[in-house]
Amino acid sequence: MTGRVAVPLPKAYRLLNHGPTVLVSSAHGGQRNVMAAAWNMALDFDPPKVAVVIDKSTLTRELVEASGEFVLSVPSRQQAAMTLAVGTHSGREFDKFSIAGVHATAASMVGAPLIEGCLGWLECRVIVEPHIQQSYDLFLAEVVAAWADPEVFSNGRWHFPDEQRRSIHYLAGGSFFATGDAFEV
Amino acid sequence: MTGRVAVPLPKAYRLLNHGPTVLVSSAHGGQRNVMAAAWNMALDFDPPKVAVVIDKSTLTRELVEASGEFVLSVPSRQQAAMTLAVGTHSGREFDKFSIAGVHATAASMVGAPLIEGCLGWLECRVIVEPHIQQSYDLFLAEVVAAWADPEVFSNGRWHFPDEQRRSIHYLAGGSFFATGDAFEV
Repeated sequence: MTGRVAVPLPKAYRLLNHGPTVLVSSAHGGQRNVMAAAWNMALDFDPPKVAVVIDKSTLTRELVEASGEFVLSVPSRQQAAMTLAVGTHSGREFDKFSIAGVHATAASMVGAPLIEGCLGWLECRVIVEPHIQQSYDLFLAEVVAAWADPEVFSNGRWHFPDEQRRSIHYLAGGSFFATGDAFEV
Repeated sequence: MTGRVAVPLPKAYRLLNHGPTVLVSSAHGGQRNVMAAAWNMALDFDPPKVAVVIDKSTLTRELVEASGEFVLSVPSRQQAAMTLAVGTHSGREFDKFSIAGVHATAASMVGAPLIEGCLGWLECRVIVEPHIQQSYDLFLAEVVAAWADPEVFSNGRWHFPDEQRRSIHYLAGGSFFATGDAFEV
């Protein structure tokens, strides 16, 4: 896989603060899965927390509820077709790790895998809130470890080296935006 | 203000799906306020729902809890300095509608104002969930009306006409990304 360096936990929110679409990976009882999620956000700085919507119909939902863990991986533009593929198909149809470009590697603190080739990773433990999980498909979690490819994120800053290694933002129907120009005000 | 056309409610999520930073405006009992929020996401399609983090220390929190309403406005790159300013100062310090470029106009369904010159707007009614509001500063809401500037969003699609009229994604410390290239996979 690409390089991977630990992100200090108080800076982990910066992997999500600009609103990229992420991959949600999960594992339980010999099964594993990965889906895409545009509906994610940071929820707190330190300890870092995140929120993500995981539909009741998904295999991911079953594995996340059973294990209490998931990983958010931030895919690059190079991985957009793969992101759409894992977001379109269900893990009940076939093993999504058979899709081209979907490779798992072990996380450090949770059983769910990291997705190789991504720009950043957040290892998450679910904060159990049954009412909002059931009513809104909304999952809250604490980030227990975070990683980034140092070629694209270091010292708490994104510095995309080229057009293909940028984070992506899903709209609908196969349409994405790349993360664009950085600017300061 | 710029043009404003109704967005059909089942397409309202597309104003937020790509993860832009938004402005949260609120009003109650003769007071009004506006803050910035990178931590927002769509939560459902139809009826559309959203989630947003509103810190306990903010005047916005007080006005949103009292009124049960808020508006999310999607600012443009032209409005980035204003977005940072309303995100940095508290409405307890001074009236943020005195900041250059912060102009309010009446919403259709809620008392909170729309912020003029933005790219899109979601009028929201809070879904009262006291536990998550108190524990996580997390507010859920139903979108009851949505609008967009037709020069930048129409037929459920963003089509940014120039570099300044793009949505923005806050990172930290005054650094933003513009929404970048659109692409299909």
